[in-house]
Amino acid sequence: MSATRPTLKLTHSGALQALDGALRKAEELGVPQNITVVDEGGNLLAYVRMDGAKLLSRETSMSKAITASSHRQPTSRLDPRNEIKLAIAGGGRLTNLEGGLPIIIDGHCVGAIGVGSGTGEQDVEVARAGLAAIGAEDQKP
Amino acid sequence: MSATRPTLKLTHSGALQALDGALRKAEELGVPQNITVVDEGGNLLAYVRMDGAKLLSRETSMSKAITASSHRQPTSRLDPRNEIKLAIAGGGRLTNLEGGLPIIIDGHCVGAIGVGSGTGEQDVEVARAGLAAIGAEDQKP
Amino acid sequence: MSATRPTLKLTHSGALQALDGALRKAEELGVPQNITVVDEGGNLLAYVRMDGAKLLSRETSMSKAITASSHRQPTSRLDPRNEIKLAIAGGGRLTNLEGGLPIIIDGHCVGAIGVGSGTGEQDVEVARAGLAAIGAEDQKP
Amino acid sequence: MSATRPTLKLTHSGALQALDGALRKAEELGVPQNITVVDEGGNLLAYVRMDGAKLLSRETSMSKAITASSHRQPTSRLDPRNEIKLAIAGGGRLTNLEGGLPIIIDGHCVGAIGVGSGTGEQDVEVARAGLAAIGAEDQKP
Repeated sequence: MSATRPTLKLTHSGALQALDGALRKAEELGVPQNITVVDEGGNLLAYVRMDGAKLLSRETSMSKAITASSHRQPTSRLDPRNEIKLAIAGGGRLTNLEGGLPIIIDGHCVGAIGVGSGTGEQDVEVARAGLAAIGAEDQKP
Repeated sequence: MSATRPTLKLTHSGALQALDGALRKAEELGVPQNITVVDEGGNLLAYVRMDGAKLLSRETSMSKAITASSHRQPTSRLDPRNEIKLAIAGGGRLTNLEGGLPIIIDGHCVGAIGVGSGTGEQDVEVARAGLAAIGAEDQKP
Repeated sequence: MSATRPTLKLTHSGALQALDGALRKAEELGVPQNITVVDEGGNLLAYVRMDGAKLLSRETSMSKAITASSHRQPTSRLDPRNEIKLAIAGGGRLTNLEGGLPIIIDGHCVGAIGVGSGTGEQDVEVARAGLAAIGAEDQKP
Repeated sequence: MSATRPTLKLTHSGALQALDGALRKAEELGVPQNITVVDEGGNLLAYVRMDGAKLLSRETSMSKAITASSHRQPTSRLDPRNEIKLAIAGGGRLTNLEGGLPIIIDGHCVGAIGVGSGTGEQDVEVARAGLAAIGAEDQKP
């Protein structure tokens, strides 16, 4: 068996474009946000906290991004019956809060975007705008 | 009274055989998994994350293994009425998520195996295959 | 600019082969070891602790692997003048202890191997055997 | 005495401009970097990790930014005789590694920029380009 397999990685240029697309949508909605982009290993690639965004939502935006990247699906799809158990046993980062979406390009999950400071619905809308900005697969929650 | 008592310890060779048995079952099921083997002290002995397994399920597989080793019983037997209180007071590692099984050989609990990334049922099936590979007592959840 | 770039990922099969190659060398030397393989994002892929290996060297083997993967070079090449400052400011994982080597295949750094419990020299020898087992570039410290 | 005093805060727009100025300089130098901008409270405002930058230098870039913001001076000015004691007693974030510069505008320290993955000299050069991009006071190390 081969020791390696080919895949794609999100570039910093792609991460910043996604960040910018999400930021413009948040401005359009008039909702300041924390916007986090991680790679497929859950490592931070790009981040911005908008003027007036909730400070602690930085961490929720990061947990959302890490979960969506880990599970390759929107955070909202995690089973609500186990949500607290998974959050604790998963080391604190595993969450089913709305607003985390995987970034899927050409069939590869190359990372995720997590948004936090608005309502769940607003967070998802801003995250989807980030995906659209780089031509990633749309993710309906 | 004697200051010591004889016991058994799981070898690294045994831990790797259990890992391999679990991995083969996961391949057979087509479900990529995180597979963790700990010793009777809850300390990591062997681990593998399969291609495509959920990244954060590393932590849940570890929590499952540590709990099963600590309590010398399948994780699923913990009382669900106290599950969140136990998870928090237990330092985050105590969980009743399915997929953690003790490794019992000749009446000694020598460690545990924890599996995470599939459904609860798949996680248990993979963990049981790990036990079977080293002739440990089967653990029906 | 493109949002993605092509790369390679280490498979779990490759990670287990590297682990096995390192383990055989450790057996040959008669030195029990902690052996850690991480991917290019510093996330755990495979691990084994051999019978008799030092328990806390699990963490040093992990720090070595994470550092070598992060910096794409042997841990021993970090500047010794800043070693303590880097260790602290880098969040505790950044180390120049010998025994961490990057896994470079076809010009891509796809992860790293970290070994801990022997002397620095033994740790490096065991790590190099892990690289050889999967045809990765040899890394002289 | 008044209960409040007027001050200035760095906007997210300013933080992103500083990030962009630093990024362009890093591209010009051909040195991939982690670039962190924090506000005057040491809280993350903007971040990017460039393709090929060292993963663990995320943490050093953050420590540099937090220190420069806290002390309102370049990190390199901290007394080297106490560097390790300060690093430990300061909770791990206090560092005199080169590459952290305060952002001073109209006499107010509104935050800091921290850069990590190159040599100390390169990190400083990239951080200064970030300051220049928003007309902040130049900081010679």
